[in-house]
Amino acid sequence: MTKKSIRLGDVVDRFGGQLFGNPEQGVVGIAPLSDATEEQITFLSNPKFRTQATASKAVALILSEADHNAIGDAYIGTRIITANPYVYFAKLAQYFFALNSEPVESGIHPSAWVSPQATVAASAYIGPHASIEAGAIIGDGAWIGAGVAIAKRVAIGAQTRINANVSIYHDCVIGERCVVHSGAVIGADGFGFANEKGKWVKIPQTGRVLIGNDVEIGANTSIDRGALADTIIENGVILDNQIQIGHNCHIGENTAMAGCVGVAGSAKIGKNCTFGGAAMVLGHLTIADNVHISSGSMVSRSILEPGQYTGFYPLAKNADWEKTAAIVRNLGSMRDKLKAVEKAIKQNEANSKDIQG
Amino acid sequence: MTKKSIRLGDVVDRFGGQLFGNPEQGVVGIAPLSDATEEQITFLSNPKFRTQATASKAVALILSEADHNAIGDAYIGTRIITANPYVYFAKLAQYFFALNSEPVESGIHPSAWVSPQATVAASAYIGPHASIEAGAIIGDGAWIGAGVAIAKRVAIGAQTRINANVSIYHDCVIGERCVVHSGAVIGADGFGFANEKGKWVKIPQTGRVLIGNDVEIGANTSIDRGALADTIIENGVILDNQIQIGHNCHIGENTAMAGCVGVAGSAKIGKNCTFGGAAMVLGHLTIADNVHISSGSMVSRSILEPGQYTGFYPLAKNADWEKTAAIVRNLGSMRDKLKAVEKAIKQNEANSKDIQG
Amino acid sequence: MTKKSIRLGDVVDRFGGQLFGNPEQGVVGIAPLSDATEEQITFLSNPKFRTQATASKAVALILSEADHNAIGDAYIGTRIITANPYVYFAKLAQYFFALNSEPVESGIHPSAWVSPQATVAASAYIGPHASIEAGAIIGDGAWIGAGVAIAKRVAIGAQTRINANVSIYHDCVIGERCVVHSGAVIGADGFGFANEKGKWVKIPQTGRVLIGNDVEIGANTSIDRGALADTIIENGVILDNQIQIGHNCHIGENTAMAGCVGVAGSAKIGKNCTFGGAAMVLGHLTIADNVHISSGSMVSRSILEPGQYTGFYPLAKNADWEKTAAIVRNLGSMRDKLKAVEKAIKQNEANSKDIQG
Repeated sequence: MTKKSIRLGDVVDRFGGQLFGNPEQGVVGIAPLSDATEEQITFLSNPKFRTQATASKAVALILSEADHNAIGDAYIGTRIITANPYVYFAKLAQYFFALNSEPVESGIHPSAWVSPQATVAASAYIGPHASIEAGAIIGDGAWIGAGVAIAKRVAIGAQTRINANVSIYHDCVIGERCVVHSGAVIGADGFGFANEKGKWVKIPQTGRVLIGNDVEIGANTSIDRGALADTIIENGVILDNQIQIGHNCHIGENTAMAGCVGVAGSAKIGKNCTFGGAAMVLGHLTIADNVHISSGSMVSRSILEPGQYTGFYPLAKNADWEKTAAIVRNLGSMRDKLKAVEKAIKQNEANSKDIQG
Repeated sequence: MTKKSIRLGDVVDRFGGQLFGNPEQGVVGIAPLSDATEEQITFLSNPKFRTQATASKAVALILSEADHNAIGDAYIGTRIITANPYVYFAKLAQYFFALNSEPVESGIHPSAWVSPQATVAASAYIGPHASIEAGAIIGDGAWIGAGVAIAKRVAIGAQTRINANVSIYHDCVIGERCVVHSGAVIGADGFGFANEKGKWVKIPQTGRVLIGNDVEIGANTSIDRGALADTIIENGVILDNQIQIGHNCHIGENTAMAGCVGVAGSAKIGKNCTFGGAAMVLGHLTIADNVHISSGSMVSRSILEPGQYTGFYPLAKNADWEKTAAIVRNLGSMRDKLKAVEKAIKQNEANSKDIQG
Repeated sequence: MTKKSIRLGDVVDRFGGQLFGNPEQGVVGIAPLSDATEEQITFLSNPKFRTQATASKAVALILSEADHNAIGDAYIGTRIITANPYVYFAKLAQYFFALNSEPVESGIHPSAWVSPQATVAASAYIGPHASIEAGAIIGDGAWIGAGVAIAKRVAIGAQTRINANVSIYHDCVIGERCVVHSGAVIGADGFGFANEKGKWVKIPQTGRVLIGNDVEIGANTSIDRGALADTIIENGVILDNQIQIGHNCHIGENTAMAGCVGVAGSAKIGKNCTFGGAAMVLGHLTIADNVHISSGSMVSRSILEPGQYTGFYPLAKNADWEKTAAIVRNLGSMRDKLKAVEKAIKQNEANSKDIQG
């Protein structure tokens, strides 16, 4: 299949930036500096790769003004100058992706089951063996993959894509232009139990999950419904795979979480936060906006001040770890010894003064 | 829809407690102190919220005798006094939940596939695109959601609810009144391999998973089948989402695990234990009854004594962590310096005695 | 059902080893020392169980030459001597497993959906409610479980088993003789976004997942597709449950990962490595061949030297941990105090010399 081409003039009309070169030049795709072919455009997002940029085979280069000036005559191809070449790359890659994609299906697959009481937009697609229960609403252009289970009264916004084998429990709401990856579970019961003489008494979980627009939810990620109030994921949140979000959590706009993160119930997390892989947040905590948690770190108290926070044991050769871990276990005794030493020195100094005095 | 109401007199007949007020008063639901409306009942489970309790709009309040005495005339509504208001809340919430729920479906959905060699109780429900293989037994009132895969000879107990897209492998047994949430996998092969000159030789996993009564299993949780013997989950165990239970584990009655916990193969865990989120247990360990493991903690040795155990690196601002982590890496040298100092002081004291002596 | 029997003479013909005893003796299965019946064979893989071995009811014993010599006349049954009894056990267990298994199904279940543009080998099995999209190729003897979703142009190699409710995204390739367990997701989008003034711009993920031969993938494990290049899992890799593999990772032959491991994007991991449960690897790192990471350890830098590496905070009684964690937080001040002490001692010694001098 021949890849479709776009004129560079059209690229800057669409995505902005300052073009240095022939606007009639066409490109068929975007690729990293080292991989790009002579029919593609490439991008320089890190000054340390300037030499690679000048050597790239790409017919055109997206770069910042600073890199443009620094490179000067060393690069002879066409340039597009923009404030953020990496974002420019992302948008142009999206454009090429859509340009070369198969047309999106619509209609209901003959093997799907759709309740007569459900409402499915004519432009939506319902895949093989998907099931849509009574009262559910599937918006314009939404795409529901194979084996997806949509329970009663769920709402799926326009242009949202729910991939194969996702499960969405009753009454949950998902906004527009979201992507939910396979195996994700939205709206299962939160983990709420009262303990009566050792036995657990289940507390019914009657809240919902409300997910905003432009949210991405990774494969095998779970987001529990609220106990009484709702679990809320605001617009623009991005969650990677294997993440656990407990009941009644509230995650602010544009916050990002990498794989394997866990957030216990009722945590309130601000906007524009980032969580590295396998970071964990205890329940009922408050995390301010613009907090960044490093991978593998355990958040056991509220964080009210923006910044980067970390807490994991540094890796070492096993034999070295055995040593340091044994000392960590006995840090109390080490501190006591240090205090004794400090005291002895003071005593010594006092004695010494007596002698010298 | 009008919510159904219950007389307070009927509440205490059903759930116990001592009523102070009008038994004819009806309530339509239960809610927390701050959310409850004038038609609802509320509960006080923590003395520090006494002031909120006296200000609640609720028509009635569930509380302990101690709080009842402490509050005195400050609260003018109806009261129910009970030993454990939180458990009372849980039970009453279950009651209202059932009262206001739609009637449970029964019968086999036309899109489901049920083997002619399977046995399905007439009162059970089999949802869209579920599959029930030969020899499987589905008990009275069991509820099998959309896309659930029940393999050969699996037994599902009465009143158990298996939510959408759960997978249960052949020969596993699940007790009565259990809840299994979407995406859970029960009975996949344990991780058993022998290493022959670098290559892994698979050991067939021929045991089963046996799950007792009143067990809850969270979304996307995995419980592996035993290698030769069975993996056993006793009555009343509650497991949150994204949990991994390895082959041949044995988990005692009423033990609770929060999200993201991992338990490696052949661990034997006692009764009434609790595991905080993302706690990890190595294989072949024994954990006594009534052991409580904090979130994010790694259990690398058997624990034979009840109590609370913890082990995670404390979170800090990243710059501070960089410093402390560097010191942790070199704790051996720090200890050596301390020893040298101690020795020097002893030497000094000896010298000093000589001088003074 | 009577279990099928095999002559010991046939066992050594098939799997090697030196037989001491009657080759006409039949065995119907293999079991551990303490469980084996008089009709079974057992194995001794650890010298510390020699006494148990001599007491076993099994009609025959697989053991090493060293154990054979050490045991001498204490054991009177038949023996098979081999270099690696545990591997011998695994192979013989596989043999018995196959011998006593039901014949594997083939053909397409009437409730499955197979695109007319897909290619399914006549000897393959497609289970209930599975879906196979256009362009997919299902190899000889492959087994596709209930509710599995195979997207466009996916290739599944011969004899590979895909268990119930697995999701495989378009264009991914899985080799021969693999096992993929339920809930696994292969080929979901990697977590790639550019940040434009706080908002996330999605980078299309156009690479694939390429999985070699003889790979095992555990329940609810996720392996993301590459962003531009492919994510690669080489031959013989074994992955346990609940694992996350980010986009563009490359995992070398025969590497093994236990449950709950997370590997961030673009990590390059060598051959014959092992990762304990819940170990985590940051993105873009390189891990050499034969590196072994302990459970619960966080790999935050590349590891270029083979060996065992560890990094987790040692578990303690909670009260003790509270103490040591407080000290860890203040290790900087402890180090400063130690320095001050060292200085004071030097000063003291100098003074002392002055006095004595």
